[in-house]
Amino acid sequence: LIDSLKSIVGPKGFLDGDDIDTRYTNDVMGTPGGTPILVVRPSDTDEVSKVLAACHEAGQPVSTRGGNTGLVQGGIPDAGEVVLSLERMTKIEEFDVQGGTMTVQAGAILQTVQETAEEKNLTFPLDLGARGSCTIGGNISTNAGGNRVIRYGMTRNLVLGIEAVMADGTVINGLHKLVKNNSGYDLKHLFIGSEGTLGVVTRAVLKLSPLTNGQSVALCGLKDFNSVVSLLGHMKGALGPSLSAFEVMWQNYYEVAFKLMPGGAKPPFETPFPFYVLVESQGKDNDKDREAMEEALGEAFESQIIENAVIAKSDAEIAENWKIRDLSAEVGASMRPGFTYDISLPVEEMETCFAELKAELTEKWPDHSLVIFGHLGDGNVHVFIKDGTDTPDKGAISECIYRLTGQHQGSISAEHGIGLQKRDYLHHSRTPEEIALMKALKNTMDPKNILNPGRIFESPVNKT
Amino acid sequence: LIDSLKSIVGPKGFLDGDDIDTRYTNDVMGTPGGTPILVVRPSDTDEVSKVLAACHEAGQPVSTRGGNTGLVQGGIPDAGEVVLSLERMTKIEEFDVQGGTMTVQAGAILQTVQETAEEKNLTFPLDLGARGSCTIGGNISTNAGGNRVIRYGMTRNLVLGIEAVMADGTVINGLHKLVKNNSGYDLKHLFIGSEGTLGVVTRAVLKLSPLTNGQSVALCGLKDFNSVVSLLGHMKGALGPSLSAFEVMWQNYYEVAFKLMPGGAKPPFETPFPFYVLVESQGKDNDKDREAMEEALGEAFESQIIENAVIAKSDAEIAENWKIRDLSAEVGASMRPGFTYDISLPVEEMETCFAELKAELTEKWPDHSLVIFGHLGDGNVHVFIKDGTDTPDKGAISECIYRLTGQHQGSISAEHGIGLQKRDYLHHSRTPEEIALMKALKNTMDPKNILNPGRIFESPVNKT
Repeated sequence: LIDSLKSIVGPKGFLDGDDIDTRYTNDVMGTPGGTPILVVRPSDTDEVSKVLAACHEAGQPVSTRGGNTGLVQGGIPDAGEVVLSLERMTKIEEFDVQGGTMTVQAGAILQTVQETAEEKNLTFPLDLGARGSCTIGGNISTNAGGNRVIRYGMTRNLVLGIEAVMADGTVINGLHKLVKNNSGYDLKHLFIGSEGTLGVVTRAVLKLSPLTNGQSVALCGLKDFNSVVSLLGHMKGALGPSLSAFEVMWQNYYEVAFKLMPGGAKPPFETPFPFYVLVESQGKDNDKDREAMEEALGEAFESQIIENAVIAKSDAEIAENWKIRDLSAEVGASMRPGFTYDISLPVEEMETCFAELKAELTEKWPDHSLVIFGHLGDGNVHVFIKDGTDTPDKGAISECIYRLTGQHQGSISAEHGIGLQKRDYLHHSRTPEEIALMKALKNTMDPKNILNPGRIFESPVNKT
Repeated sequence: LIDSLKSIVGPKGFLDGDDIDTRYTNDVMGTPGGTPILVVRPSDTDEVSKVLAACHEAGQPVSTRGGNTGLVQGGIPDAGEVVLSLERMTKIEEFDVQGGTMTVQAGAILQTVQETAEEKNLTFPLDLGARGSCTIGGNISTNAGGNRVIRYGMTRNLVLGIEAVMADGTVINGLHKLVKNNSGYDLKHLFIGSEGTLGVVTRAVLKLSPLTNGQSVALCGLKDFNSVVSLLGHMKGALGPSLSAFEVMWQNYYEVAFKLMPGGAKPPFETPFPFYVLVESQGKDNDKDREAMEEALGEAFESQIIENAVIAKSDAEIAENWKIRDLSAEVGASMRPGFTYDISLPVEEMETCFAELKAELTEKWPDHSLVIFGHLGDGNVHVFIKDGTDTPDKGAISECIYRLTGQHQGSISAEHGIGLQKRDYLHHSRTPEEIALMKALKNTMDPKNILNPGRIFESPVNKT
């Protein structure tokens, strides 16, 4: 098999033995994977197809690798797997400026795609911290979310057509530019968000939007969670589709973050508030955006939804307003040894869920710290928990937060996926019938269980 | 089996023999279906589950029925099938005003949902001509499109969670309110747009948007198709997400339609144009919307993208501007015996594709008439063709337009679906590998092939 794979991809297309460095085994957090028997780096769809057909024939498990920025250990290989890296498939094949689409190979870097679009006054609005190294294929296979979901949706909403290769090498060519296409099953949704377990995405047609030129950002202080919910409804109505971010910081986050602000920044408000909200709109020009923001927040103040607000008056002030929200990585680091969680909840369940979480943490770990913030416009919150003991019990804490999330109709993974890390908790968010159907689909599309086996759910009986 | 089905749904829940009228057999166009052995009208998900489990056990085919407004013969029963009507499952179970969601049973009528949302200043933005009788379940199973897709997307984009019952009675409960949910495969996309062949949608959580209060509408005259494409790009940039319609009428449509205008309406332009575009924006208030429209069209005029334009100055003028586009049914009727087609094409392929169509029609049917119009913002066009002979050959005309659509990377069904009517043409838009995967999914989820068998593609070998 190994010789056959080598001959498919040619001398530039593989690495073996000591040439395989940690770039092909570890993830961005440094979590080590096992040693693969071979790394293949195909140069086009045809080579991917031939590699998978050979692995399928031999029952050889394959770990597919994009930009290596996943956070749930879905992209690190087990020992003995073949690593399939798409790092040589980075071409932007077509940029259709008039039609507003870009056709790219799956290994294209997100930031390259963004910058190429912006040269023509268009935007590919997917945006996340890993933009400089994550790939479009990885974004698609994890259905990446990020900063602008409230306005543009997840990756799933930003992809018109997909080409993917199934486990047995069959190429499913759904590369088209159509917004409307009800000709039979929409197969691309099987490959989006299934974390490489149903096929390898090789190319995609991305949907671009017009670049926005205006921006307005405000930071608000609020007295309780109900007010946060009211403000979200109010701003959605007042700003309409220009609303591009609605980021909420619980007081516990805000206070930790503020201490980390560089250069001794002065607090924008004289008194503390239980909740802080950063609101952003992106429209036609800065003046009109700020005007609309002022009007909307004026109404919110009069209705006693917000206690106070500051609206940025310059690009520098916009950056400053975002700074405290952007300190989340530093806040997380300051809480080590602690654990971070990416969950989503229906907005009406949040307050109760977090009250129950606080109570349970207090009972079990009296010295714990809890910090909450996130993209409330999407129901997505990030939670940092440090149990305050010398022997942090990640399993027990995870069980606690995921169980409560499930009880409140939430998702144990809002945007990061399941991978290996959350696999044992999947039942908190999905019913036994749903998991059985997932396994049946896996079995139909990958009967020998060679594609990222064991990720998302435990391997079905291996039939090879 | 029949006794068992009757006892599941109770005396109010079935019809048989002469009680089965054409409401359960014909479609809205009057196309007759076969005579079902029984009509069942379950009152909740549990009854749907038991009905399907019994039919699965017996290998009994089932034709699922919503509002009976489908246009591709996907909803009419074959003789000997059981008709499963959701007409008793019409409840709005929850209206979460703060969270902006509505949870409904699949038999709820679209217009009822729209009106309920609007009472609270929200909108369920799916809108189509059949709004008064089509059901949410039918909208979901056909991934309905309609009038506002350019702004809000297809039904697929407007549904957060779905509950569906599989062929064997298994209930897949994915009823949640989460925008972000990457916990394993997103199973709802299997049920959306698969025309009832993979499961019966029983309930759904719908995503609502803020109601818009402003509107502006303009009618433009353009010199060529390139200008139409330039105007689309320009208006997308200028109006941003407020752009809510971009309807194009080829001169051949406009002239037929204008003769049908009631009360001898005066043409808005003194000279004819090869293309007419109706543009609509929906924003915060009428004045601001009209101001933005005037500015955008002024720029388009200066750049020589448009030759002329009239902007409506009142609600009456808005209605008048829409009237000519809304006459499409009358235009279709005036062309009988002719045939109507719902296709989508990449914008850059349209001009060539229609030139080739015109040439082929001229060669084969010298006396034909051809009329084209549609939602160009979505790449979706409707085409009316009358071959001008005494013995119209629908098969030959369909083969011609679908073949050309496929050759130009288009879809033979933009929004209506495949059903029975387009089944033999599916290969023009989908590859053999895609169709094989569709059949494999069907076989996994409905191994006895009892759910709407033979719709979309020919039945796989029936294993019962």
